[in-house]
Amino acid sequence: MAEPVTELTQNECWDLLRTHEFGRLAFRLVDEIHLTPINYAVDHETLLFRTAEGDKLLSVALGSEVAFEIDEYDEDSARSVVVRGTPRLLGEDAAHRAENVPLRPWVGDPKYNVVEIVPEVVTGRAFVLSRPWTHLRTDS
Amino acid sequence: MAEPVTELTQNECWDLLRTHEFGRLAFRLVDEIHLTPINYAVDHETLLFRTAEGDKLLSVALGSEVAFEIDEYDEDSARSVVVRGTPRLLGEDAAHRAENVPLRPWVGDPKYNVVEIVPEVVTGRAFVLSRPWTHLRTDS
Repeated sequence: MAEPVTELTQNECWDLLRTHEFGRLAFRLVDEIHLTPINYAVDHETLLFRTAEGDKLLSVALGSEVAFEIDEYDEDSARSVVVRGTPRLLGEDAAHRAENVPLRPWVGDPKYNVVEIVPEVVTGRAFVLSRPWTHLRTDS
Repeated sequence: MAEPVTELTQNECWDLLRTHEFGRLAFRLVDEIHLTPINYAVDHETLLFRTAEGDKLLSVALGSEVAFEIDEYDEDSARSVVVRGTPRLLGEDAAHRAENVPLRPWVGDPKYNVVEIVPEVVTGRAFVLSRPWTHLRTDS
C-alpha cells in the first residue's frame, strides 16, 4: 500500500511551482501572522510577485522571513509545496524581470512594486487521499 | 464597473468556511514561519482540526497566534477568507466535538489530537478577476 505522505524532490517542487500562478504568502508584521493569496511567477529559481503599497510591502521593507505555499488536489491525491525565504523589493534596474515571465495580475488594481523571494528552503509533500465519502456523493 | 476588491461580510465568510474542508495554516515556531495544508471543520463559530504529534501541535502547545486561509476561484472571480486566532488543544472531555462535525481526515495516517481555534478576527475578500489570457487558451 502506498505511503500516505511522501516528500517531493526539489525538481518536482519546482515543476509544480512553474505550473501554478496562484499561492498564499504568510508573513509577520510585528507579532501578527498574516496570510494572503497572491499571484506569482517563477523566474529561474526565484519567485516574483507584484504588490501595491500596503502590508505585504511593509513586511518586505522590514526584511522578515516569509513562507509561500501552493497546493493542488484531485480525488485520490494532493500535493503541496512550501517555499521559505526573505523577500526583497527589486529596484528599477531589476524590476523589468517581471516583464519577461508570466506574472499576470489577476486583479485590475495597480501594483507597481516587484518583489523577489530567493528561496532558502523548498519542500513539497504528496498525500495519498483516503476519502471514501467522495464516492458516496449523490450529487455527482 | 465593479470594484476589483470588496470585503466580505462576516456571514459570507462563515458561509465559505462551512463550504470548504481544506485550508492552510500559518504559524510561528520560534522565529520561523510555517505554512501547511490542513483539513478542518467548522463547529459553531470555531474551527476544529486534527493533528499528529509534530510542528503544528508544538505550536499549539506554545500558545502562539496562527492564521488560517481558504480560497476559491473560477474564471471571473476569487474569494479568500482568513481567520486569526490562538489554537488550543482540546482535552478528552471536549475532543468528542470532532465526532459531531464532518472533520474527515483526507490522509490515512493517525491524528488523534483535536485542536480548536476560536477566531479573534475573520476577514474575507472577493476579487473581480481580469484575466483576458484565459480566453486565449488554445488547449481548452
